[in-house]
Amino acid sequence: MHFDLIVIGSGPAGQKGAIAAAKLGRSVAIIDKKAMYGGVSLHGGTIPSKTLREAILYLFGLRQRGFYGQDYTVKEEINHEDLLMRVRMVEDREMGVIRDQLKRNRIQMFFGVASFTDSKTVFVQGEKEEFTLTADNFLIACGTHPAGNPDIPFDGKHIIDVDKIVDLEELPRKLIVVGAGVIGLEYASMFAAMDIEVTLIDQRTTILDFVDYEIIDRLKHSLMDEHTVFRLGETVKEVEKEREDLVKVTLDSGKVVRGDTFLYAVGRQTNTDSLNLDAIGLTTDARGRLAVDNNFRTEVDNVYAAGDVIGFPALAATSMEQGRLASCNMFCSPATSSHELLPYGIYTIPEISMVGKTEQELTRNKIPYEFGTARYDELAKGQILGVKSGFVKILFDPVTLKLLGVHIIGDQAAELIHIGQVVLSLGGTMEYFRETVFNYPTLAEAYKVAAFNGLNKLQVDNNVCRVEADRCDDVGQ
Amino acid sequence: MHFDLIVIGSGPAGQKGAIAAAKLGRSVAIIDKKAMYGGVSLHGGTIPSKTLREAILYLFGLRQRGFYGQDYTVKEEINHEDLLMRVRMVEDREMGVIRDQLKRNRIQMFFGVASFTDSKTVFVQGEKEEFTLTADNFLIACGTHPAGNPDIPFDGKHIIDVDKIVDLEELPRKLIVVGAGVIGLEYASMFAAMDIEVTLIDQRTTILDFVDYEIIDRLKHSLMDEHTVFRLGETVKEVEKEREDLVKVTLDSGKVVRGDTFLYAVGRQTNTDSLNLDAIGLTTDARGRLAVDNNFRTEVDNVYAAGDVIGFPALAATSMEQGRLASCNMFCSPATSSHELLPYGIYTIPEISMVGKTEQELTRNKIPYEFGTARYDELAKGQILGVKSGFVKILFDPVTLKLLGVHIIGDQAAELIHIGQVVLSLGGTMEYFRETVFNYPTLAEAYKVAAFNGLNKLQVDNNVCRVEADRCDDVGQ
Repeated sequence: MHFDLIVIGSGPAGQKGAIAAAKLGRSVAIIDKKAMYGGVSLHGGTIPSKTLREAILYLFGLRQRGFYGQDYTVKEEINHEDLLMRVRMVEDREMGVIRDQLKRNRIQMFFGVASFTDSKTVFVQGEKEEFTLTADNFLIACGTHPAGNPDIPFDGKHIIDVDKIVDLEELPRKLIVVGAGVIGLEYASMFAAMDIEVTLIDQRTTILDFVDYEIIDRLKHSLMDEHTVFRLGETVKEVEKEREDLVKVTLDSGKVVRGDTFLYAVGRQTNTDSLNLDAIGLTTDARGRLAVDNNFRTEVDNVYAAGDVIGFPALAATSMEQGRLASCNMFCSPATSSHELLPYGIYTIPEISMVGKTEQELTRNKIPYEFGTARYDELAKGQILGVKSGFVKILFDPVTLKLLGVHIIGDQAAELIHIGQVVLSLGGTMEYFRETVFNYPTLAEAYKVAAFNGLNKLQVDNNVCRVEADRCDDVGQ
Repeated sequence: MHFDLIVIGSGPAGQKGAIAAAKLGRSVAIIDKKAMYGGVSLHGGTIPSKTLREAILYLFGLRQRGFYGQDYTVKEEINHEDLLMRVRMVEDREMGVIRDQLKRNRIQMFFGVASFTDSKTVFVQGEKEEFTLTADNFLIACGTHPAGNPDIPFDGKHIIDVDKIVDLEELPRKLIVVGAGVIGLEYASMFAAMDIEVTLIDQRTTILDFVDYEIIDRLKHSLMDEHTVFRLGETVKEVEKEREDLVKVTLDSGKVVRGDTFLYAVGRQTNTDSLNLDAIGLTTDARGRLAVDNNFRTEVDNVYAAGDVIGFPALAATSMEQGRLASCNMFCSPATSSHELLPYGIYTIPEISMVGKTEQELTRNKIPYEFGTARYDELAKGQILGVKSGFVKILFDPVTLKLLGVHIIGDQAAELIHIGQVVLSLGGTMEYFRETVFNYPTLAEAYKVAAFNGLNKLQVDNNVCRVEADRCDDVGQ
């Protein structure tokens, strides 16, 4: 069979790429392993981890502790089954949503492992049959898997990688996480929230360097409050099992850390190995990543790539957009995303989100800035929700009052960031927040409180009534 | 004692008016009854009702029923005490926040009932003492109370007005609400959410006419699903008690409705009666409302008014802004809020929020529009949260693609509306949502889904690949 486009991989990038081409009237097929329908996002990645997180937030009553005390939980005994029930339900429903969407757009789905024969042909090894498909264009969106490490005796039960977390048969009592990147931190914070002792090890001395330093400080402080131990700047020398359920980790510094579960969250490798890229003359880097141009085109004219396979930022949100743009570029004129203002959502507990520049970036680049902050507990909604913490920081140009960056840590951070993102994208200033009426009570009011806080810093002498109308507004909080 | 400004009333309008003047270096005093410190917003109004709502959402597990079934509740037995405990905690904390804020700004607080002697002097009748204060300017922000009705035999226990709800000693089993305005609907939906039978009576045949008709339909549908009975276009003829805990309501149509609790949610009257406005030559309308100009100035030069006392929209959010603007106008040059794009937040269950025009307004004014919609259950975050419903509708100009209105019903509506509000205020188009990367998974993604849905409607023929780059982007979902 011949198609206008064959997409290899059915994760977020593949789905949106396929749909975009179908909407343009092209014939489209997707090839993926049956077990991976929906991609790693649906299997072991974004969806299960975020579902697990919501279940934990709820079942452990974490949003209610402002009212009911630090030890409050909803259920007396919480077991892994309670958590996994939700994960399975959400996976099933989300799978249904994806299947419907692909069907509605008349995209054909083939199950199997694809490998290139030439730049227009792939051979598909299915479970029971094998066949060949041809296409004018290809979109490689095959994703990644945990990189593994030959020195670590993975057993799938007590020594695992991140894709196996949802398969755990019981909750750890003492967890050791190696790798304090986004994924490592997300899981570490989830388990810490369940009052599980967590030790987090990373050879780097700092974490999440692209995030504003103050937000990181607050995250670390919050995790340490939950008894998480940070071992930064430390290298793992050896991982061994002392008993079936006792893992011993020895660090280069001589320290020994013991726990019943060891989670390896270091690095990912792309799934390009089986693609036989040699046949079309494409090469990858050591992690299997493909290089693409601004149009998401590889060095082979009719072969595009999108999603985790092309590397940073490797977020579901950006992968979707890359897939869509790749298909647009394939079949129409060049299209690029006009907004460089990507938001970052980090689903730790507490949640982190940011858009624009950090304080350290601005300082490094010698860009002068002022800042305004608000705490959730200053807001009526914060009181009503009984939140323990929550913090919004807006960085802005002290002369033009234009926004430079927004940084949030706390409940709903990943939602609230989009308000700042619009103002930043459309070139609005701090005056927007000052002059706008926000619904009351909401957490979004934090923008207004932070704006007043920031604008008040610009007034050298508050005891003078400024007669100019344009300054008279700076006096709200 | 003499002040630059005396504010009468310590609710949202009074607080923000006082703070604005204090930030401008003026000496400021607030006068209010001790029991009303914080205004009706804190006592019987916004804060307690929204706290009650969050407590109900949580304790009745309403956000969890997608996972645990329709009958799921968190606690086996939920009593009024559980609900009121939270209300009292939040009131106390919020009172503390207000007190700190006023103190930090060196605003003097006097407790008592104020009445004008002349346009520069008020007499204050305190609990134990009486005294006179003078000021160059006054801000009347005295708020409102339920209008009452001589034909209704209020008893404070089974026949009550809305300010008495939080004093109820036990939860109703069968509730009759008269008045299907915002407040009546908010309470009706809260009690309905607790599986309490609710009958809602209003003499008008339609409800919340300023809200988009489709959102109202969805609200009504949702309430009827919870067994709420609507009696619209019906007038109450008589309210009587058949027993201590049995209220009989007879309608003009001859229908009889019985319940153990009767809630009267019709109309509010301002608290101007005790102000002795005659002394300064000010008059009010039948409901005690004061007329003000665009600067929030009354007919008396040095007397301003803000908040519920000046009428529509009488929301805490707008009252704050009015109070602030009044003080700016008093002491500086004229300042008006530059954004006419007020959001409305209606804290029913499900929550409603809107900004901009409704479909019926656009139709009435013969303004052509197109629309794009998204349901929460199409979103990964909707699945993860297990929400039962949720709906976003964006109205936009089919030629310029500029936004005309955003309407949301569902969890977090009052927060999410602010994203659309910025785009609307800063003149952005549907292209903003199409081209912007949203955090995944979030409910905010509904904007992107709705934008694709709307933009796809503009494409007459999907089977043609448009070569113009500017149309090539409309193909995402």
